[in-house]
Amino acid sequence: MKIVVLKFGGTSVGSIKKIKNVSKIIISYLRKKFKVIVVSSAMSGQTNRLVKLTKEISHNILPAEYDSVVSTGEQISCSLIASTLNEAGYLSRSWLGWQVPIFTEGKHSHSRIVNINKKNIVNYLKKGGVPIITGFQGINSQNRITTIGRGGSDASAIMIAKSFKAERCVIYTDVDGVYTTDPNISPKAKKIKKISYEEMLEMASLGTKVMQPHSIQDARLHRIDIEVRSSFNNNPGSIITKKKNISKNNIIRGVSFTKNDSKVTLVGVKDRPGVAASIFEPLFKNSINVDMVVQNISSNKKETDLTFTIKNEDLNKTKKLIKKNNKIKFKNLIIDDKVAKVSIVGVGMITTPGVTFRMFNALAKQKINILVISTSEIKISVLINRKNLKKAVDVLHKEFKLDN
Amino acid sequence: MKIVVLKFGGTSVGSIKKIKNVSKIIISYLRKKFKVIVVSSAMSGQTNRLVKLTKEISHNILPAEYDSVVSTGEQISCSLIASTLNEAGYLSRSWLGWQVPIFTEGKHSHSRIVNINKKNIVNYLKKGGVPIITGFQGINSQNRITTIGRGGSDASAIMIAKSFKAERCVIYTDVDGVYTTDPNISPKAKKIKKISYEEMLEMASLGTKVMQPHSIQDARLHRIDIEVRSSFNNNPGSIITKKKNISKNNIIRGVSFTKNDSKVTLVGVKDRPGVAASIFEPLFKNSINVDMVVQNISSNKKETDLTFTIKNEDLNKTKKLIKKNNKIKFKNLIIDDKVAKVSIVGVGMITTPGVTFRMFNALAKQKINILVISTSEIKISVLINRKNLKKAVDVLHKEFKLDN
Repeated sequence: MKIVVLKFGGTSVGSIKKIKNVSKIIISYLRKKFKVIVVSSAMSGQTNRLVKLTKEISHNILPAEYDSVVSTGEQISCSLIASTLNEAGYLSRSWLGWQVPIFTEGKHSHSRIVNINKKNIVNYLKKGGVPIITGFQGINSQNRITTIGRGGSDASAIMIAKSFKAERCVIYTDVDGVYTTDPNISPKAKKIKKISYEEMLEMASLGTKVMQPHSIQDARLHRIDIEVRSSFNNNPGSIITKKKNISKNNIIRGVSFTKNDSKVTLVGVKDRPGVAASIFEPLFKNSINVDMVVQNISSNKKETDLTFTIKNEDLNKTKKLIKKNNKIKFKNLIIDDKVAKVSIVGVGMITTPGVTFRMFNALAKQKINILVISTSEIKISVLINRKNLKKAVDVLHKEFKLDN
Repeated sequence: MKIVVLKFGGTSVGSIKKIKNVSKIIISYLRKKFKVIVVSSAMSGQTNRLVKLTKEISHNILPAEYDSVVSTGEQISCSLIASTLNEAGYLSRSWLGWQVPIFTEGKHSHSRIVNINKKNIVNYLKKGGVPIITGFQGINSQNRITTIGRGGSDASAIMIAKSFKAERCVIYTDVDGVYTTDPNISPKAKKIKKISYEEMLEMASLGTKVMQPHSIQDARLHRIDIEVRSSFNNNPGSIITKKKNISKNNIIRGVSFTKNDSKVTLVGVKDRPGVAASIFEPLFKNSINVDMVVQNISSNKKETDLTFTIKNEDLNKTKKLIKKNNKIKFKNLIIDDKVAKVSIVGVGMITTPGVTFRMFNALAKQKINILVISTSEIKISVLINRKNLKKAVDVLHKEFKLDN
């Protein structure tokens, strides 16, 4: 059987009109002789409405009850999709997580799928039926409804694609695909045809609008090719796949950025083992995410300068935590809350020398000062003054031939 | 175990505030050392919202999908009730129809409960837990969610009370109980402490605001005592029970009425076998409900006069259907659309002679003309001019000592 898994996100099924449109997409695959398994999220807004109800009861509602409440969202959307297909003359029915069943393990609201019973679905596909399976949910060994924390319905679709050995897993959403950079900042941004899992993971700012990192990790682990595309037009999307399937023509796949960063520098920190841990421990405990970290040896060898970046919204809390932290001693605290991070991402840079130089040189020609540098195998990030952000994105996009 | 089943209707769980109030009612029974099983409807408005969604997809949505959609209403309310009890420190959890399981048979949307698995619930009660079971739903042999047509959540509560041999089944709703007559028409109306199933069934106009006839039938069949009371105050309600538990002090239990009737008389109908069937067949096929029917022999022995009553809203349709019915011949059609039906109901009248006389005499003293009479074993109904309705109710209420 030539199986395709089609996953529809909340905005794609956000109204009756959109659900009817979704059924047309499904029918287009049936006409191409695919056996189609559909996975759907709740209609957009529904899950928020349900979460609000639970919070009105208690902020400590037991996760088992929380899961039972929020899972009703997909229960509704899946029946409506199946009914639209029925109305168009196709055999289709909804399958709730417990009906498949989709077995999960782990805590409620943070469960993970461990096994999917294929028998009933396979029989239904053989009869020519279109199963519409609820995303985001399953059952545990106590026969209670669970929801999947990591990646939600995307994770469901990927696990289903893996179980049924689907030829494709198509994630329908409200964005067109993955772009070389944010089209809102650079009109030269182009849709990427193929991108590796690893690049997609490093494209944080561009990627997270499309898919949650956890789901990309799942797809990578199980070697599932994913197409991300919009349910609102017929344009082909972006395919996320293995490195070896990626064209080597472009060294760099995209230019990503974050623009709400703050830079914090502790000057003249007493350098002794464990000092970095002492600085970051209270931040970690307060859920403050530290991004770039750089440590320089100061002129005085018994001291060091430590720089890190955080989100602007965490700045005041961070300042307070550092000032009241009596485990560390330092001479001065320098804050810059007007910085941005620009990154180039591409698996090609591993085997191509000089990428770092080309990046720094291109920025230098535009007189853009680099404040902090941080590199990984397939990503180079620089911190710059925020006012130079657009200029930096444009010059890097051009330098690495992403414009055409 | 001293088990009580508490059923809460949609208005009783219509808001977070009301759900919190429901948990207080539940706790009051726990304090009296009852083992409590709760059955809940969906929050009021929810089911209508869900039905509307399905209609926007199609007016012919498959009943299996319809059931899957509308059953989410109770799934939500039951989790919220359980969470409120958890918040107050009590062990409680929701049980969905398929989790119990509650097995049903028959068509989707019109299923009936045939078996309830008691094991898990009993174990949970023994542990001191309060199970909150979804009303209105179960599963069928195909493992799909079904909903119960007849009586909905009330029917669920009665079947659960029967299965678990509950001492009481309390139906919490938004009315105080069953009254001797409508308090809106007669300030002398009194709440009935105990009423038999049979009287309750005959009290149509007063009873249906309280409970669906099908559920009363179920309770009668299984000999389950029901208390109907309001969740919005602490007043004791009305108990619906077996005839032998009913006090014989009052011959008559109540005075019920309908006030939107029309009377239709066919004068001089050719009398031949099957003529009544010919008249009523097209009405039946058009879902027009015929209430009282009286046939008199006309002066001419080959002809008859036939009178029946219908709802005012069906009058125009009825007139058309009769006029175009070529299977019947009659001389004249007389319509009176300003009539009302008043009934006295009570099991006591079976063994008490003279009730009919007392009723007619009381009305005659008020110069109220009787247009049609219809009697059953425990009910006598008369059709009168609508302008006399209040006067008739008042005089009968007084005549049969319901005033005090």
